[in-house]
Amino acid sequence: MGSMIARMLVEKGATIVGAIARSPQQLGRDVGDLAGLSRPLGVTVTTDIDAVLAETKPDIVVMTIASFMNDMYPNVLRCLQAGANVISLSEELLYSWITSPAETAKLDAAARENNVTFACSGHQDAYWVNLIAVMMGSAHTIDNVRGLVEWNVDDFGVELANLQQVGRTPAEFDTWNAQAQRPPTFGRTSLQSLVAVAGLHPLESTTETRPVFASTDLKCKALGVIVPVGNVIGFTDIDTVTTEENVTLTMEMTGKVFTDEEADVNEWRTFGEPNLTLINTDLHTHHTTCATLVNRIPDVIGAAPGFATLDKLPQLTFRQTLA
Amino acid sequence: MGSMIARMLVEKGATIVGAIARSPQQLGRDVGDLAGLSRPLGVTVTTDIDAVLAETKPDIVVMTIASFMNDMYPNVLRCLQAGANVISLSEELLYSWITSPAETAKLDAAARENNVTFACSGHQDAYWVNLIAVMMGSAHTIDNVRGLVEWNVDDFGVELANLQQVGRTPAEFDTWNAQAQRPPTFGRTSLQSLVAVAGLHPLESTTETRPVFASTDLKCKALGVIVPVGNVIGFTDIDTVTTEENVTLTMEMTGKVFTDEEADVNEWRTFGEPNLTLINTDLHTHHTTCATLVNRIPDVIGAAPGFATLDKLPQLTFRQTLA
Repeated sequence: MGSMIARMLVEKGATIVGAIARSPQQLGRDVGDLAGLSRPLGVTVTTDIDAVLAETKPDIVVMTIASFMNDMYPNVLRCLQAGANVISLSEELLYSWITSPAETAKLDAAARENNVTFACSGHQDAYWVNLIAVMMGSAHTIDNVRGLVEWNVDDFGVELANLQQVGRTPAEFDTWNAQAQRPPTFGRTSLQSLVAVAGLHPLESTTETRPVFASTDLKCKALGVIVPVGNVIGFTDIDTVTTEENVTLTMEMTGKVFTDEEADVNEWRTFGEPNLTLINTDLHTHHTTCATLVNRIPDVIGAAPGFATLDKLPQLTFRQTLA
Repeated sequence: MGSMIARMLVEKGATIVGAIARSPQQLGRDVGDLAGLSRPLGVTVTTDIDAVLAETKPDIVVMTIASFMNDMYPNVLRCLQAGANVISLSEELLYSWITSPAETAKLDAAARENNVTFACSGHQDAYWVNLIAVMMGSAHTIDNVRGLVEWNVDDFGVELANLQQVGRTPAEFDTWNAQAQRPPTFGRTSLQSLVAVAGLHPLESTTETRPVFASTDLKCKALGVIVPVGNVIGFTDIDTVTTEENVTLTMEMTGKVFTDEEADVNEWRTFGEPNLTLINTDLHTHHTTCATLVNRIPDVIGAAPGFATLDKLPQLTFRQTLA
């Protein structure tokens, strides 16, 4: 993600002034080289975030390091305290006021004290939040909002295939599911963001997890194994958020091994007067994740100081250039 | 449309203070009766717009009378001059700066002088403009935007079936098409609105019109006739807007007699990095037209004075209540 975003930033006229990486293979390399550009940018990758912040005084830091608050908190905080705006792809921090209220309030306060803004974006900004919010604006009444998202475990690799419990027996899955201490699902924080953008007020948030079983023997390319019929090929998180306005929002997100006939799914429906449907096909989630973040940068720089969840930002817009 | 909007307004807690109609059958009737409510509202329909404006001093006038500037101009002007905000469904006035620049500037000036706002909304606000603009915000580059819209002539009635040239021979269609003095297509002003919302700058706007022929003998329910194979069952307007940014936007809108297998279409694609697709199925255009206008009312009342095209309004949002 970091390399693709670096390329998009350069192609849209931004100046990259520094780069930080954790991976030893990237240290000392030129960002233009890492980003697949045809020329060096004269900026090499280092590990010393404080030195880079002090020397370069960036307008904004793009942070693509982690999904959850524990990993994000210290790194966002030091950037805000150094007077830099921050934009991230962190899924929990898309709307972390309910899942991690204390840390969220501290980041909000630090941003205000330093007169800078922190925000998160990515694929979910458009496809799980704002397209749905705009469609909801064409409804007279809404009882339910239901999202259906499916992605292919084989698009990601070994680590995620194991996290999705691919190859487990039903009994092994049940044991794992009963004991798993999982962080907040991406569905939960996306729905809470959608609730905020739609001007609703959340009550309860719940998550249920159901295994998906192979209906025929199925090859998992990421693991290089055949999952026998009846064993686990992934699972579905079913997140539900209820609201004071009696609108109930549900998102079913399935990460599983696809058959050759399956493709990524993003389908959202509202039920009320009238019923509404929105479908995106031919999804390119890596690209839209990076492009959406880049298009959001002027919004974040222009926003009021603080932790700017999506409800605090203007409508997402295409940008030909950042210059 | 007026009756459905009146019902939605009442159901969302707005107070209707006056009603104007042109149709003699509606004069003297109670608005609650016309709107299909179970109770009278104590507001009867009259023809004297100036008297109603002076007596009731409405916060906003909902105007559902016409599609084009010539019919809209004097009526919008008198409301603005009476100090009322105005919201309309007029398709041309969704973005009339290019098709009717002089009248648009005069309405803008009148609104500013009287410290009120004029805006237009409807189905196109969400489905032809803002959903597309949000999706565009997830693209890194865009070469083309292409919209495909299809609607059924038989959903509307005799007048529109004749306007869509249903039943004509190919030669009759060509004669009409060569001579027709048609007002701006809805596609043209919608694309110009999308260009403005997306922050692009328009260059040329063109419209091409192509007949659609019956591929088998097809019943037109609106006209009560069978259109023989080879004759016209409607036509397609192909609108194109080019921009300074080299993004070319095209909208193909087809109004024709549907077969039993066909349904309304709303499909939009962008071509660039990456390609993007958005599809709405199960469309309820009458309902979304009215509901979107109602949800926009607080945006219009809260907007800066002037002619507020969609690029001047905040993101469309669902509203549980207007109270």
